[in-house]
Amino acid sequence: MNAHFSHRDEHIDDNMIKMEVNLDDMSPEWLGFLLDKLLAKGANDVFYIPIYMKKNRPGVLLQLLCSSEKLNEIKSIIFSETTTLGIRYSPIHVHRLERRFRKIETPWGPVTLKEGLHNGAIVQAAPEYDDCKRLAEKANIPLKHVFQFVWKEIPNYS
Amino acid sequence: MNAHFSHRDEHIDDNMIKMEVNLDDMSPEWLGFLLDKLLAKGANDVFYIPIYMKKNRPGVLLQLLCSSEKLNEIKSIIFSETTTLGIRYSPIHVHRLERRFRKIETPWGPVTLKEGLHNGAIVQAAPEYDDCKRLAEKANIPLKHVFQFVWKEIPNYS
Amino acid sequence: MNAHFSHRDEHIDDNMIKMEVNLDDMSPEWLGFLLDKLLAKGANDVFYIPIYMKKNRPGVLLQLLCSSEKLNEIKSIIFSETTTLGIRYSPIHVHRLERRFRKIETPWGPVTLKEGLHNGAIVQAAPEYDDCKRLAEKANIPLKHVFQFVWKEIPNYS
Amino acid sequence: MNAHFSHRDEHIDDNMIKMEVNLDDMSPEWLGFLLDKLLAKGANDVFYIPIYMKKNRPGVLLQLLCSSEKLNEIKSIIFSETTTLGIRYSPIHVHRLERRFRKIETPWGPVTLKEGLHNGAIVQAAPEYDDCKRLAEKANIPLKHVFQFVWKEIPNYS
Amino acid sequence: MNAHFSHRDEHIDDNMIKMEVNLDDMSPEWLGFLLDKLLAKGANDVFYIPIYMKKNRPGVLLQLLCSSEKLNEIKSIIFSETTTLGIRYSPIHVHRLERRFRKIETPWGPVTLKEGLHNGAIVQAAPEYDDCKRLAEKANIPLKHVFQFVWKEIPNYS
Amino acid sequence: MNAHFSHRDEHIDDNMIKMEVNLDDMSPEWLGFLLDKLLAKGANDVFYIPIYMKKNRPGVLLQLLCSSEKLNEIKSIIFSETTTLGIRYSPIHVHRLERRFRKIETPWGPVTLKEGLHNGAIVQAAPEYDDCKRLAEKANIPLKHVFQFVWKEIPNYS
Repeated sequence: MNAHFSHRDEHIDDNMIKMEVNLDDMSPEWLGFLLDKLLAKGANDVFYIPIYMKKNRPGVLLQLLCSSEKLNEIKSIIFSETTTLGIRYSPIHVHRLERRFRKIETPWGPVTLKEGLHNGAIVQAAPEYDDCKRLAEKANIPLKHVFQFVWKEIPNYS
Repeated sequence: MNAHFSHRDEHIDDNMIKMEVNLDDMSPEWLGFLLDKLLAKGANDVFYIPIYMKKNRPGVLLQLLCSSEKLNEIKSIIFSETTTLGIRYSPIHVHRLERRFRKIETPWGPVTLKEGLHNGAIVQAAPEYDDCKRLAEKANIPLKHVFQFVWKEIPNYS
Repeated sequence: MNAHFSHRDEHIDDNMIKMEVNLDDMSPEWLGFLLDKLLAKGANDVFYIPIYMKKNRPGVLLQLLCSSEKLNEIKSIIFSETTTLGIRYSPIHVHRLERRFRKIETPWGPVTLKEGLHNGAIVQAAPEYDDCKRLAEKANIPLKHVFQFVWKEIPNYS
Repeated sequence: MNAHFSHRDEHIDDNMIKMEVNLDDMSPEWLGFLLDKLLAKGANDVFYIPIYMKKNRPGVLLQLLCSSEKLNEIKSIIFSETTTLGIRYSPIHVHRLERRFRKIETPWGPVTLKEGLHNGAIVQAAPEYDDCKRLAEKANIPLKHVFQFVWKEIPNYS
Repeated sequence: MNAHFSHRDEHIDDNMIKMEVNLDDMSPEWLGFLLDKLLAKGANDVFYIPIYMKKNRPGVLLQLLCSSEKLNEIKSIIFSETTTLGIRYSPIHVHRLERRFRKIETPWGPVTLKEGLHNGAIVQAAPEYDDCKRLAEKANIPLKHVFQFVWKEIPNYS
Repeated sequence: MNAHFSHRDEHIDDNMIKMEVNLDDMSPEWLGFLLDKLLAKGANDVFYIPIYMKKNRPGVLLQLLCSSEKLNEIKSIIFSETTTLGIRYSPIHVHRLERRFRKIETPWGPVTLKEGLHNGAIVQAAPEYDDCKRLAEKANIPLKHVFQFVWKEIPNYS
């Protein structure tokens, strides 16, 4: 194995905040914009859940994680970009695997394989999406061809 | 059985239109308003589906039924009350059961039981929600107490 | 600006409880009733999430907020009105903006504009839905006409 | 009443953990498998929520409860069976009703009725699904016939 | 390639019916039962969509396909097992690929690989879920180990 | 009004096809890629719906529109990029409004306002999202500031 970059050791992060905001009077156009902005500003795991709110409103729940150091910055972005008058949050633990990255050669160019280790053993191995996307677009082939090629390089577990 | 009002015979309606509209830039507040307005104007089975649209937009699909005679009126309401530039529609068949209504006495007042008949046999029997709601609120008891009382009056099928 | 009622200052409420209940054997009719009842009894942010449960059940997750003083009362309503045998809950922080209300005159009558302030600056400004709804129904015009009229009264941020 | 098995007293369990995992690169086939496996291994209330993730991904949020003693075992199953590199969790309180079970005779065989008690009063009473399913399949009748028969045995609350 | 069973040629089926039913007063327990029963009776592609219905009801839309010969039989099942008073349907075209099946040997036993052909070329290749599930359970290994082993046997497209 | 480009007259397009595909064994990563590819190839209104499928699978329904001339090309993309063995489709009518575009000057640059006309009257008027996004990012201001500025330029309806 030619691991060329060791990301971080497996660890439990006790310094994270889970944030939640209900949105019932805001255009989905703005929500798409907000998701990318929050990720760019350092929030993690930003996503929306469709929810059923009062007065027959098909609303949306924004959820995200951020480190406690970023709490106030992320709050300000949410108040600026959304229509909400309130933000809910609470501390949360995050168990993160050790991550390793290695290159796989394909007929269309190299792809990074991301591996996750739990107690020192590889439990995850997945091609990086952005690499596969770039190669598929450049070679004008289906995305699944690139993924399926890389899958053959995942070592057997048995 | 004391049926006191026979609604309509079982039939297949070949004169209905199914309408669909994607909405990705409209407040859920307006959607709640629209749902009630469309029902008041004679549309049937008006509802929303949460959908995943381009540019990370958590949008909504409006779907409804209307008779072909009401097609243009319903279209005009949708163009007036939503932000859409397009409405999709196609004909659809609707098989409707024969409906019968009868009164059930409860300790809190009478409730209508709605029955549905398929090929002459009762296959559906359900208390009318609005009746049960009114009694539960008036008597200040849980809604399920009213429903569960009425359920005892549904005849056994065996 | 003619603010005529200052609601409350911006604050962080550390006395709130987030409650969650899974429901997999209960009619959506009862769920609609429950949502309004919980709001009437003082719960905040009551809503449903569609969830995928065991045995192919398209269930629903009820979520709400309440102050810790109301914990037992809200629990009793949930046990009375739903079919659940268990309720989950945990404390949560809520950051709420300062709120101000002012009147906007429109051709169809007055509408309240609700403003939200973060660190003393206006970051939110939205017409009150119930006012707009009442005027639209009375004047028999699209709801969006009322909103769009009021939007012109929101001061520019630049 | 012929209660023949008293499950447990009403109590608040302060020893539970709520776990959450975002999944954006995993087949729904595997998710179906995982749900059953987690339940078999002692997790409670395992379910999925549809979520909107970055890059237009219609992902899924896995949520479950487990006792703190099972935390590490459940984590290992999730890392083994999913593609995730991180698991989020936090403590949660669970208020559980007292449960009682009794047999109801029906024309197709016996069905267990599960009752839930809050402060000593019966607030829940529901037929066990697995019993009803078995009888409906054996007798080749609609499932609702079995439920509706058992409902008549639920005592009135008034 | 050792194809040992040729399923059917690629074709367009113009004899199919798409059926839709809104359900707003029915327990998710019954819905889980219904899904399996409809599949057992010959319906195809049976599934549920979460929908927002009037009066704040988090309802469900049942959708399925069936051949026009089975129309009346499937209708009767739906009227018997659900609470609905109406069923909507319309004709639909279905383009189906040619299917081939072949066996892949794994360390835990054989797995069927299902291939799909479009204009004579293999465009789909996927392990049969039920095979992988059985082997994973028997060998007490993660399901993904079985899938990932079989994936290596999918021929390259380049 | 300085309309400088008249898009197309209001019309009903009877040449469109609605396509639907169920996906229960495909990574959400691939689905995000597919959505953009289908739009780039000329499909309209491409979106996903979360659905509940057999064996507890939280699947996804792909839906899109295309002109009948593009039917075969779009089918081929779907077979190449997804894992499906079948595609469903049926004809659909689309009523499209007349569209007009005009420029609005803002403190941060020009924004296109898109208007929709029904029977010759303006019923829709909305800022183009991509313009607003570009200006908000360049000026480093909230997206809603740009929208709210443009909203003031929408003419009153009364």
